[in-house]
Amino acid sequence: MKPKKLRDYGIIIGKMKPGRYNAITDVEGVKVGHTTLMDGDINTGVTAVLPHEGNCFKKKVMAASHIINGFGKTLGTVQINELGTIETPIILTNTLNIGIASDALIHYMIDKNPDIGITTGTVNPVVAECNDAYLNDIRGVHVSKKDVIDAIKNAKNEFSEGSVGAGTGMSCYQLKGGIGSASRVITFNDMEYKIGVLVLSNMGKKEDLLVNGKALGKLIVELEGNAETDGDKGSIIIIVATDLPVTERQLKRIAKRSVVGLSRTGAYIGHGSGDIAIAFTTANKINHYEEDKIINIQMVNEAHIDMIFQATVEATEEAILNSMIAADTIFGRNGHYRKSLKEYIHLYYK
Amino acid sequence: MKPKKLRDYGIIIGKMKPGRYNAITDVEGVKVGHTTLMDGDINTGVTAVLPHEGNCFKKKVMAASHIINGFGKTLGTVQINELGTIETPIILTNTLNIGIASDALIHYMIDKNPDIGITTGTVNPVVAECNDAYLNDIRGVHVSKKDVIDAIKNAKNEFSEGSVGAGTGMSCYQLKGGIGSASRVITFNDMEYKIGVLVLSNMGKKEDLLVNGKALGKLIVELEGNAETDGDKGSIIIIVATDLPVTERQLKRIAKRSVVGLSRTGAYIGHGSGDIAIAFTTANKINHYEEDKIINIQMVNEAHIDMIFQATVEATEEAILNSMIAADTIFGRNGHYRKSLKEYIHLYYK
Amino acid sequence: MKPKKLRDYGIIIGKMKPGRYNAITDVEGVKVGHTTLMDGDINTGVTAVLPHEGNCFKKKVMAASHIINGFGKTLGTVQINELGTIETPIILTNTLNIGIASDALIHYMIDKNPDIGITTGTVNPVVAECNDAYLNDIRGVHVSKKDVIDAIKNAKNEFSEGSVGAGTGMSCYQLKGGIGSASRVITFNDMEYKIGVLVLSNMGKKEDLLVNGKALGKLIVELEGNAETDGDKGSIIIIVATDLPVTERQLKRIAKRSVVGLSRTGAYIGHGSGDIAIAFTTANKINHYEEDKIINIQMVNEAHIDMIFQATVEATEEAILNSMIAADTIFGRNGHYRKSLKEYIHLYYK
Amino acid sequence: MKPKKLRDYGIIIGKMKPGRYNAITDVEGVKVGHTTLMDGDINTGVTAVLPHEGNCFKKKVMAASHIINGFGKTLGTVQINELGTIETPIILTNTLNIGIASDALIHYMIDKNPDIGITTGTVNPVVAECNDAYLNDIRGVHVSKKDVIDAIKNAKNEFSEGSVGAGTGMSCYQLKGGIGSASRVITFNDMEYKIGVLVLSNMGKKEDLLVNGKALGKLIVELEGNAETDGDKGSIIIIVATDLPVTERQLKRIAKRSVVGLSRTGAYIGHGSGDIAIAFTTANKINHYEEDKIINIQMVNEAHIDMIFQATVEATEEAILNSMIAADTIFGRNGHYRKSLKEYIHLYYK
Repeated sequence: MKPKKLRDYGIIIGKMKPGRYNAITDVEGVKVGHTTLMDGDINTGVTAVLPHEGNCFKKKVMAASHIINGFGKTLGTVQINELGTIETPIILTNTLNIGIASDALIHYMIDKNPDIGITTGTVNPVVAECNDAYLNDIRGVHVSKKDVIDAIKNAKNEFSEGSVGAGTGMSCYQLKGGIGSASRVITFNDMEYKIGVLVLSNMGKKEDLLVNGKALGKLIVELEGNAETDGDKGSIIIIVATDLPVTERQLKRIAKRSVVGLSRTGAYIGHGSGDIAIAFTTANKINHYEEDKIINIQMVNEAHIDMIFQATVEATEEAILNSMIAADTIFGRNGHYRKSLKEYIHLYYK
Repeated sequence: MKPKKLRDYGIIIGKMKPGRYNAITDVEGVKVGHTTLMDGDINTGVTAVLPHEGNCFKKKVMAASHIINGFGKTLGTVQINELGTIETPIILTNTLNIGIASDALIHYMIDKNPDIGITTGTVNPVVAECNDAYLNDIRGVHVSKKDVIDAIKNAKNEFSEGSVGAGTGMSCYQLKGGIGSASRVITFNDMEYKIGVLVLSNMGKKEDLLVNGKALGKLIVELEGNAETDGDKGSIIIIVATDLPVTERQLKRIAKRSVVGLSRTGAYIGHGSGDIAIAFTTANKINHYEEDKIINIQMVNEAHIDMIFQATVEATEEAILNSMIAADTIFGRNGHYRKSLKEYIHLYYK
Repeated sequence: MKPKKLRDYGIIIGKMKPGRYNAITDVEGVKVGHTTLMDGDINTGVTAVLPHEGNCFKKKVMAASHIINGFGKTLGTVQINELGTIETPIILTNTLNIGIASDALIHYMIDKNPDIGITTGTVNPVVAECNDAYLNDIRGVHVSKKDVIDAIKNAKNEFSEGSVGAGTGMSCYQLKGGIGSASRVITFNDMEYKIGVLVLSNMGKKEDLLVNGKALGKLIVELEGNAETDGDKGSIIIIVATDLPVTERQLKRIAKRSVVGLSRTGAYIGHGSGDIAIAFTTANKINHYEEDKIINIQMVNEAHIDMIFQATVEATEEAILNSMIAADTIFGRNGHYRKSLKEYIHLYYK
Repeated sequence: MKPKKLRDYGIIIGKMKPGRYNAITDVEGVKVGHTTLMDGDINTGVTAVLPHEGNCFKKKVMAASHIINGFGKTLGTVQINELGTIETPIILTNTLNIGIASDALIHYMIDKNPDIGITTGTVNPVVAECNDAYLNDIRGVHVSKKDVIDAIKNAKNEFSEGSVGAGTGMSCYQLKGGIGSASRVITFNDMEYKIGVLVLSNMGKKEDLLVNGKALGKLIVELEGNAETDGDKGSIIIIVATDLPVTERQLKRIAKRSVVGLSRTGAYIGHGSGDIAIAFTTANKINHYEEDKIINIQMVNEAHIDMIFQATVEATEEAILNSMIAADTIFGRNGHYRKSLKEYIHLYYK
C-alpha cells in the first residue's frame, strides 16, 4: 500500500493542480531510484534522480543551481553554473558518502561512455548530501559503490517517499524527514507543462514547523515539551525539474524561488543548514557532439514566468511536508528516534 | 497621535522581544528622515536612513547587500560588496528619481567633505527605489534635490511609518504599503544588542497576503472579489541594521535571511519585483583615513549566529506588516486607490 | 585628420583581423557619441554607446556584466544580470556626474516612451563612470543633462578616440587615457561576425605599462624617473559588443575574458580601480511587448566559443592602447598634466 | 640535485623579493606532499597542501575561493565561500580521482577527529583537479586512497616541482606542466610577511605562451610547427597562502588577482579550462570549539592591499613558469609526449 501524502489528509498547499504522480516524475523522462540501508544503527542510503531516459552525457539538460546556504558539500555546482548543463544522474546521499558516491558515479559514467578520457573530456558528477548522523552511524560510511549504481538502476516513475533512499536517516523539524516530492501542472501556450520538485529534507527545529501556515510545531512543543536544545544543524537539497523551455538564467531564477516554499514550512535557513537548490529543464537539451555551429533554443517569454515561480513555491512547500508525512517513526543510532508527522497531523484540525 | 503598529492590534510576530521603538532606530545612532509629497496625482517622497550620527564618509559602517530579485535599479551595491562598507546615508525614493537622488546625495557628501575629489577619491552613493506609478505621477519626477537633503536633515530616532517619505505612493499586496520598521533585542555575552529592520514595501498580490501565517488575502478576495489581474510588479527594499559586531560575510548571510520574513507575508518573489536587502553594523567602523596598518575587528562567534538570523526574519516580517497597518487608505493618480490593511485586520480574528 | 591608432604605428595585437573601423561600431547598429568639455580646469564629458538604431526599450539587447573589481559606482548592473538585457543607451561619464547622467537618461527614455510609468513599468538606466579628478574639477559636476542627451544624439559609426567625451580627463598608466576601441572579425558558419570593444581607460601605474608584451612603462620610468607615488586609483569600463548569437550566460563568460586583455597591458587590478565589463549582443533581441508565449533564441555552439574569447582578449588589449595613443598630452586642473603615449612609442622599437 | 627554477635561468618576474624557498611553504606552517605514479601509461598522482601543522578541523584557516572559469569539478568551494574557512588539507589530483580523493580525505579527517559525526557535525573536504588524460590512463582511476593519505603524510617544507604528485601527467601550453610554486616577501608594519602560490598547471596552447612578456610560444611554433589543433582543454588550480592578517573578503579579492598572473603567461581562460583559485591566511584561525562569544580578528588596512595584489600576480606568473621549467620531458599514454620548457628556454635570450 502506498503511504499517504499530505493531500490524502485533506491539506492542500496553494492554488495550482498537481500532476498525475504529484511528484518530480510528472516531468516526462525524469525517474527516481532508491537504495535503502536500514539495520540497527545503520539508517542511510542513496537516491538517484535521472534527468531523462537517454544518455545524459551525450544529451545534457539545461540546468542552474542556487546556494541558499552554503554550509554543505555538494559536488558539481561549479560546472553547472558555468556551462548551464547537467550531464549525469543527480545522486543524493549522506555527507560522508559523497566521496564514494562521486567515485561510483564517475565509474558509471565512464562505463557508459567509452569516449570519456580518451577522445573527449571528463565528466562532471553531481552529488548532493545531508547529514544523517543523528539516526545513522555516519562514521561507518556504509554506502557502497554498488548501492549508488543500484539506485540509478532502480529509477522509475513511481517511487517511495519518506524514510527511503538518501532520506532513510534524515530528520526534518526534529521529526522524521527524508525524500518528498510534489508537482504542479501549467497550461500554457495550449500545452500542458509540468513543474516537479523533489527534496531531501533534513533541517529545522520542531517549534518552528508550519503546516500550510498553521503553527503545528508550537502545538507539538506545548503538548510534549521540547527535549532538544540543538540548533538547526540540518540541510535540505531541493531539485526542481520542468519540461517548460527555459534558459539557464531562468532556471537560476526558478531555483531561487524554492526558498519561499522552504520558508513557508517554518525554517529560517539556519546557520548549520546546507541548503542547495538545483533546477533543470528537459526541454532544451544540449548535445555533447553537436554538429551545428549555431543552435536554436526556446525560452518562456519572461512576462509569463510568475506562474512557474508560483508552481515552484507550492511544490517545494508540499514536497517538504510530503517528506515528513510519508515517513514512519524511526529508531536509529544510539537510541535516537524521530517521530512521524503522521502522529501529529490531527492537531492541524484543532 | 502615533499610528498603531501591528502589535497594537495584538498580533505578535515570532518569539523575540522588540526594542524601545520597535524600529531600526533601536540600533543606537541610526536615524530615519522623510520628505513626503502628497498633492493630487503626486504621491511620492524620500526616506533617508543614516547609519550613524557622525560623518559616514570618514567613518564607514561595515555592510553587505543581497539581491533577492534583481529587477531593480539600486545604486551602490557593487561597491558595498567589494569593499564591505557604506559611506553615505541610504536614500530611498521612487524609481525615476534615482538620478536626482544620487545627484543630491553626491552634492551633500562633497559639501560635507571638502577632500572628496581633491585629496582623496570620490564617494559611493547608496540609493534604492521602488516603483510608485500606480498611485503617483512618476513620470513627473517630482522629487527635488532639496527634498533629498531635507530627508537627511529630518532624520531622527522616532519616525513615522506607512504612507510617508519614499513610502507615500507605494502599494503592498495591492493594499497600501510604504515604510515599515521593527526590531529585536538580543542578550548576548552579557550585553543587549539590537537588530532593526526598515522596509520600503511595494510588492505582492492581494490574494497572497499572510498575516502571521493566516491567509488574510484569501479572505479579503472572498469578501470583495479581486478586481485586479496584474502580476506582482512591485519591489521591496529591506535594510537591516545591528550593533552586533559582525563581519561583511556575516552581514551578507544576515541580509539573505530577510527573504524568509518576506516569504512569510505571502509573496513568492515575483518576476517584476526588485527585491534588495542591505545590512550594516555600527559596531565595526572603518576609518577613511586609517593610520594603523593592521586594524582589529570583532565578529560574533558563528556558532551563535542563528539568533541573529531569527531576529532578522521576525523583524522583516513584522516591518512589512507595519508598513501596511500604519498606512491610511490613499487615493492617487488617475483615480487609483489603495486601501489600508487596517480596514481588514478584524478578519484576522475570525 | 583622424588621430592615429596603434596599428598605424605598426604594432599589431594578436592574430585576428580587425573590422572596417577597428572599433565597436563594426558591430552593425552600434553607434558612439561624445560630448567633450575642455576649458581650463574642466576636462570631462560624456560618451554614449547605442546598442542599436531602434528603440532600445522596445527591443532590448541581450547582455551581461562582470565586476572585475567593484570599487565603482556603475548603475544598472543589478537588472542586467537578473534579466539579461539592456534597454537604454549606455552612458559613460565621470564619477560625480552619475546622478545627473542617470537623471538625463531617464528623461530621455520617458520622452521616447510615453508608456513608461503609465501602462508599463519603469526603465533601467545603465551609467558607468571613472574618476577624472586628477585633470578635471570633478567637484564642479560640470556635465549637464543636455550634455548627456547631446552625446546620445551625436552617436554615429565613426567616432573619435583618446581625450574625448567621458575620456577627456581620464589617465591611463599615469599617461593620458580615455576612450579607445578595437574590433575583430570572425568567420563562422559561413558568415562574418564582429566583436567590438570600447573602453573608458583610467587605471594603472606608469611603471607597469606593457605594450604588446614590451615593458614600455619601465623604459619610461628609467628615462624620466617616476615623480608619482600614488597607487592605482583609477578604473576602467569595458564594453564588448557582438552580432554573434550568444546567450546571457555566454555573454557573461565573454565579459570575463576582458580581464585578460586588461592584464596584458600591465595592470594588476588595483584596489582602487573600479573595473567593470558589460557585454551585449545585437543578435538576440527581446521585445518589450512580446506576443509569443515561447520565443526562439540562438546560441553559438559552446565548443566554438574560444574564438570569441580570443577576439575579446585581443580587442580589449588593443582598445586600451588605442585610448592612450589616440590621446594628446593634456594640461588640466591644478597644473596637473598627462603626456600622451605617442611621445614614448618610439621606445617600443628600441 | 634540485631541478632548476625560472630564476636559475636568470629570468626574474616582477619587482618583489621571493622568500627562502620561493615557494608556498615560505608561509610558516604550510607544507606540501606528493604521491607520484609513473608507469607506462600511468602518469598521475596526488599533491596535498597542508594549511598549517596542527589539526585543521579544530583550527580552521580563513579562506575564500574564486572561480575564474567553472569548467571544473572542485569540491568544497560552496562551504569555503559561505563560512570563510578551510578545515582540511587541500588535495589536488586528476579529474576522475576526485571521488576517491574525497573519500580518502573524509576517512583521514574522521580518523583524526573522533567527534565528527558523533558530537559535532561533518567535515568539508577540499579537493581540486585537472584532467591529465593526454599523458595518463585517466579512465584507469589509478590513484588509491592510500596514495592520498601518503601525500598528506609526505608533506614538508621543501618539495619537488614539475612532473610530480598531481602534476605528473599535466600539460601546460602543450609543453610539460604540473606543480609549480613561488613566493614574495612583504615588509609591512615592521614585520616580514609572505605570500606563496602553488599551481597545478594544465592549460594553454603552445602558440600563446609568454615568458616574462616574451612571446616564446610563437618562436617555438615557428621553429617546430604546431602539430596540434586542439583547443584549450586544460585547467589550472591556483592556491594562494599568506600569513598576513586578511579577512575572507580580502582573500576573495586576493584570489581574483591570480587571473592577472595567469593572463601574463599567455592564456586567455579557454572555454574548456576549469580555472579555480583558493586563497587562505594562517593569521586568522577560527577554533571549531570556540568558547568566546565574540572573537577578535585582524585585517590589513585596505589602503595597503595593493602590495598583496601585486605579490599574488607576480608569484602566480612565476609559479606557472616554474611548473613548466622544473618538469622533464615526459612520454605517456598512447605515445603522447610533452616536452619540457627547459628545451626551449634559450630562445628567451634570442
